[in-house]
Amino acid sequence: MRIRFGDCDPSGIVFFPQYFIRLNGLVEDWVTDGLGISYADLIGRRRIGMPTVNLQTDFCAISRMGDIVTFGLEVEKLGSRSLVLLLDCKSDSEERLRARQVIVTTSLETHRATAIPPDLHAAVERFREAC
Amino acid sequence: MRIRFGDCDPSGIVFFPQYFIRLNGLVEDWVTDGLGISYADLIGRRRIGMPTVNLQTDFCAISRMGDIVTFGLEVEKLGSRSLVLLLDCKSDSEERLRARQVIVTTSLETHRATAIPPDLHAAVERFREAC
Amino acid sequence: MRIRFGDCDPSGIVFFPQYFIRLNGLVEDWVTDGLGISYADLIGRRRIGMPTVNLQTDFCAISRMGDIVTFGLEVEKLGSRSLVLLLDCKSDSEERLRARQVIVTTSLETHRATAIPPDLHAAVERFREAC
Amino acid sequence: MRIRFGDCDPSGIVFFPQYFIRLNGLVEDWVTDGLGISYADLIGRRRIGMPTVNLQTDFCAISRMGDIVTFGLEVEKLGSRSLVLLLDCKSDSEERLRARQVIVTTSLETHRATAIPPDLHAAVERFREAC
Repeated sequence: MRIRFGDCDPSGIVFFPQYFIRLNGLVEDWVTDGLGISYADLIGRRRIGMPTVNLQTDFCAISRMGDIVTFGLEVEKLGSRSLVLLLDCKSDSEERLRARQVIVTTSLETHRATAIPPDLHAAVERFREAC
Repeated sequence: MRIRFGDCDPSGIVFFPQYFIRLNGLVEDWVTDGLGISYADLIGRRRIGMPTVNLQTDFCAISRMGDIVTFGLEVEKLGSRSLVLLLDCKSDSEERLRARQVIVTTSLETHRATAIPPDLHAAVERFREAC
Repeated sequence: MRIRFGDCDPSGIVFFPQYFIRLNGLVEDWVTDGLGISYADLIGRRRIGMPTVNLQTDFCAISRMGDIVTFGLEVEKLGSRSLVLLLDCKSDSEERLRARQVIVTTSLETHRATAIPPDLHAAVERFREAC
Repeated sequence: MRIRFGDCDPSGIVFFPQYFIRLNGLVEDWVTDGLGISYADLIGRRRIGMPTVNLQTDFCAISRMGDIVTFGLEVEKLGSRSLVLLLDCKSDSEERLRARQVIVTTSLETHRATAIPPDLHAAVERFREAC
């Protein structure tokens, strides 16, 4: 993806919350395209949320407007109610950002934690084995 | 592009300012890829801004999370100091949004209007003829 | 309100979609505090949406990081199913932005237009008379 | 501050990157109002950046549209080139978010780390003593 004008701040580099908007888009696309489970359907029809409960981020190097960057995703851990992802953003071989995100599944009716649905759990397991 | 979770609000449809973030990205990509003039270079090195001075938008139909939409851009008018663009967002043949955006070129040192640089002007003319 | 770092782009001025995020906050606060009808309750419990169907904006002058600006709201027209607002952003007496926003009320179950609820309609009328 | 419609996602709770936009606003206001050093001037005229290099966040409880929340800031550590802040977001006594943010000062000409300017360093020290 290209770093856009609107992602950057008056210092000319990415305004850091914009990274998290991009990373959330990455997780969403991964669920839909990588795991084959519609994220929109999960939230909208099935009423299962995937909120973040912990997030650790190292901003290793700056990204400027116009830079072409690549986002990566790896599953570190899969539990019965939570999922730990390792995310990164690189430009060529330079690491720009590295994050560790703990996600839980919740019922959107109660906003309480709930078990990861079996189809999602199985799809994450298949993804891990394939990696 | 896919309408993402983070583009939508608690009513489940696109939060309208998000459309403008996307449309600004479209204009930026059009300058860089469509016209062959680096937008990042224009802003960063050449210190030429392209602020919007007037924007009229019809929101024709809602977009929901997960929808696949296409953004379109056409040049309505090219002056010596301003540019009028017609923008739209469609899903299949359904029009979601239609906008008319007046952009001027400015010096980023003074934020005053300045003539459209010759290379940008010529590139917009070629684009119009090709359309 | 103060124009923040994160509202501005690499050209050092407000990234225009940020104005619409602020203006939407203004409309929301106006409904809740000015009209005395909880916007969160309207959307969340009563399932009534207030989407924008038309928006015309003049960006009259730039706003820079650190500027203190004031947002204003006036009701131009109140129909049975729609509402026209005149919004502006000023810094001292300098007009920065002027917008005309057409809002309709919808059922969030169907996303179809619905009559403005009587309590909201009456509150808008009282607001207009008081102005 | 009130949690706004535009801060929330289709699951009806705060879209987590929005917290970081708010927290960045808090840091900015703290520098300007709490420390008495204009953040806009720091970035704009003095060309000193304050990028985040590490950020750890616990999302303890959800925030819904309409909630009134309070943001807090404390200085954990002050070095010659970096600053560690403890940030939180509460609603009444319920903790919603807790973050630890490591900020460095950089020259915006080179984007390299630079010593915290003496006036900023002294102001942070006074702030710590006063707390």
